[in-house]
Amino acid sequence: MNADKIPDIIIGRLPIYLRALQRMVDKGIQTTSSQELGERVGISAAQIRKDISQFGEFGKQGTGYRIPFLMDKLREILKVDRIWDVAVVGAGDIGHALARYQGFVDRGFRIVMVFDNDQSKVGEQLGEFVVKDTSVMIEELQKADIKVAMLTVPATAAQEVTDMLVKAGIKAILNYAPISLNVPEGVYVQHTDPVTHLQRMTYYL
Amino acid sequence: MNADKIPDIIIGRLPIYLRALQRMVDKGIQTTSSQELGERVGISAAQIRKDISQFGEFGKQGTGYRIPFLMDKLREILKVDRIWDVAVVGAGDIGHALARYQGFVDRGFRIVMVFDNDQSKVGEQLGEFVVKDTSVMIEELQKADIKVAMLTVPATAAQEVTDMLVKAGIKAILNYAPISLNVPEGVYVQHTDPVTHLQRMTYYL
Repeated sequence: MNADKIPDIIIGRLPIYLRALQRMVDKGIQTTSSQELGERVGISAAQIRKDISQFGEFGKQGTGYRIPFLMDKLREILKVDRIWDVAVVGAGDIGHALARYQGFVDRGFRIVMVFDNDQSKVGEQLGEFVVKDTSVMIEELQKADIKVAMLTVPATAAQEVTDMLVKAGIKAILNYAPISLNVPEGVYVQHTDPVTHLQRMTYYL
Repeated sequence: MNADKIPDIIIGRLPIYLRALQRMVDKGIQTTSSQELGERVGISAAQIRKDISQFGEFGKQGTGYRIPFLMDKLREILKVDRIWDVAVVGAGDIGHALARYQGFVDRGFRIVMVFDNDQSKVGEQLGEFVVKDTSVMIEELQKADIKVAMLTVPATAAQEVTDMLVKAGIKAILNYAPISLNVPEGVYVQHTDPVTHLQRMTYYL
């Protein structure tokens, strides 16, 4: 296994497999096949076998995959066999939704701070967090050694806030703002956007 | 071109290309290459050429793609050369964010209705919408012939509401609830989940 050589597109599918496997475990299913997993995620069995075999031999011909074992391996590969502290920047609607979202538990992430520059929001109780002022953000992120942030500020502010996050040592940004962010090498951005999901479905209508 | 035979995984990349091309046009760029587009979306030039060539010859060897033409073709393929009316079900944080989201304009979608079953929310003004009662949802969706919905209700209610959407004739559901939905053949579900995006980045940290 040479991690550097594995295409990002394969890495992008592993979290989808992990989520589907979790749902199977939740239903009491303990073993699966590439065929069954493929049907659940809409990816061919051959592709799944090929993707997973990049990292080692985690299943057996004929008997398939033992789900808890495969999940452990995927968590290890994706480095979510630990807990990443996450900062939310922007305490608007999406920031609120994320601070209350129950789906982070047991999946490798824990929100620990929420920031906003709007003085009417600073100090507000948001779930279990008190919204902090963006003016102290760089210092707070560095002190807590946070590497992951979710960015939910308006598009007009997104690049400026991103520059602050980079300065603070953030290495992974999930961007909810509808613009492209410029970041230096070694900082990763994923964009989340409802329209790309919708467009993928209208193709079939 | 045989639409039935094109893998869903390719279809899933087209909206990403379309979004990147839009951003180039916004910056005044009128032509591009697979190489340049690839760098912007993190996909190899070879893959982009292969994906696009499934649908026809939209670029020229040496001169690349004329962006407005390629965008028109992608919109046509994805059926977003028209406007799809969309219903939002669930007027919580995410429902609020979607109703106010400016990123739908010019990308093929228009929210036209918002529903909730919480009587304290029904009648509430949400952006330009008045929240309607879920009890009239099936009737209203059928009357307006709506095919696309975004589901932002709690996980515990998501399947029940999905069954109502299917009954109303909805064919595409963007699911924000952290559970798998069961839908009949011919109804499409896309799941949006911040954790899968985060996990894709931690791999590299």
